Amino acid sequence: MTRQELINLIHTRRSFLCVGLDVDKNKMPAHLRDAEDGVFLFNKAIIDATIDYTVAYKPNLAFYEAMGIEGLVQLKKTMDYLHSLGKPAFTIADAKRGDIGNTSQQYAKAFLDPAGDFDFDALTIAPYMGADSVQPFTVYDGKWVILLALTSNKGAFDFQFLPVGDNKKIFEQVLETSQQWGTPDNMMYVVGATKADMLTQVRAIVPESFLLVPGVGAQGGSLEEVCRYGLTKDCGLLVNSSRGIIYASNGEDFAERAAEEAHKLQQQMSAVL
Amino acid sequence: MTRQELINLIHTRRSFLCVGLDVDKNKMPAHLRDAEDGVFLFNKAIIDATIDYTVAYKPNLAFYEAMGIEGLVQLKKTMDYLHSLGKPAFTIADAKRGDIGNTSQQYAKAFLDPAGDFDFDALTIAPYMGADSVQPFTVYDGKWVILLALTSNKGAFDFQFLPVGDNKKIFEQVLETSQQWGTPDNMMYVVGATKADMLTQVRAIVPESFLLVPGVGAQGGSLEEVCRYGLTKDCGLLVNSSRGIIYASNGEDFAERAAEEAHKLQQQMSAVL
Repeated sequence: MTRQELINLIHTRRSFLCVGLDVDKNKMPAHLRDAEDGVFLFNKAIIDATIDYTVAYKPNLAFYEAMGIEGLVQLKKTMDYLHSLGKPAFTIADAKRGDIGNTSQQYAKAFLDPAGDFDFDALTIAPYMGADSVQPFTVYDGKWVILLALTSNKGAFDFQFLPVGDNKKIFEQVLETSQQWGTPDNMMYVVGATKADMLTQVRAIVPESFLLVPGVGAQGGSLEEVCRYGLTKDCGLLVNSSRGIIYASNGEDFAERAAEEAHKLQQQMSAVL
Repeated sequence: MTRQELINLIHTRRSFLCVGLDVDKNKMPAHLRDAEDGVFLFNKAIIDATIDYTVAYKPNLAFYEAMGIEGLVQLKKTMDYLHSLGKPAFTIADAKRGDIGNTSQQYAKAFLDPAGDFDFDALTIAPYMGADSVQPFTVYDGKWVILLALTSNKGAFDFQFLPVGDNKKIFEQVLETSQQWGTPDNMMYVVGATKADMLTQVRAIVPESFLLVPGVGAQGGSLEEVCRYGLTKDCGLLVNSSRGIIYASNGEDFAERAAEEAHKLQQQMSAVL
């Protein structure tokens, strides 16, 4: 999906919500937990219930990998369903990959190649290994790399805020250096909602780039603050909520409750746009 | 595998060689490329040919993921074979993962859990997200996290050498801070052979930790230099070679040629030990 197509979708749905599909069997409704294709059926119900309020879906690879190969089969079924729906959605593999050039090429093929098992629009990448670990993800037309800048967790304070060189913070250096590796048409950044007060500094370096913002909801970030400091004329935000939507209920009404939570967020987003 | 078991294995085999199983169908011998279970059969032949000269195997996840779900089936067969062999080997998932705490827990389960599909001894992790992204990998007995410190690629110069705080380099800060997250019994570090001259600085901070050293061979690193600066009384090194061994030939003699290359490295290592 190109940048313009994403912007159009945001305006059509009046939403910049990303639903995180972090499926954990222990938190799923009991009737699906041991059902055949239970994970896919759970995702399908969540997608059907939320797609009118949502522009993006973000499966977190860890949760599928933790189920072994069967988990990836469930992920493939989910992606096949999303591709077959006839309603567009931006799809993000939250995979936090990144390796030397010839290896990152293989990860790009795994997640972004239209002929592959998944055909995601975008992939999250850790910046530690530098240029050649990131650039292979920018070569597919209409596909994106989403680089970690400022993450939503406590561990973000271990390195990301350390001062480097002429008193920039590491996350600012990552934003600055990575400008040479991609453009606002193929590169986004992860900036955690729990650090919304840093968005002004982020926007000073990447005024146009889309930001993927996790941490609203269960992790404590505020949508209002994220919008205040992060919104651009093209929106420029994808705000993710995972647990707050997909586990709004663990009963048979899980999909209805997910729809309600997604709708609430969409209404707040619509008011801002 | 515990630290002591690893040290014993190194002394028994007189080797600290790690063979990187970075299987790319385009580089495999023609007769296996399209065979059923060709990737597994390739790995099996490489393992059989090299295990007497080797203490560790390191499948690079990207190469398996690039083949889709079928690639992970081939990886599982490879791991099942290694576990069934009756000859011990330390197994490393070269996966470069790392995410917020609850997500890293899922990655740990995916790769290290003895009840999971793979049951690796160790996993490579990127440090950018800090403590809670790394600690979940240290909770399994006899299992390891291998943290990226100084990587072998050109992109390593983008961030890893930048001066932080009181004029340490970022990779030194990673080594220092991460001392609080694990011990030499459950944490190793990646230090690229292409930066062997940095090993003195690395050893000043982590005198006892095992180092996983990629970059000997195809990437240009020197085994002699790595040993000069990195060896400890307990060896403290796992030196990886991937392409130089597994693609020594792409003919039907690939396994024999892999054995020769592994044997050559083992003899150099034996002389050093």
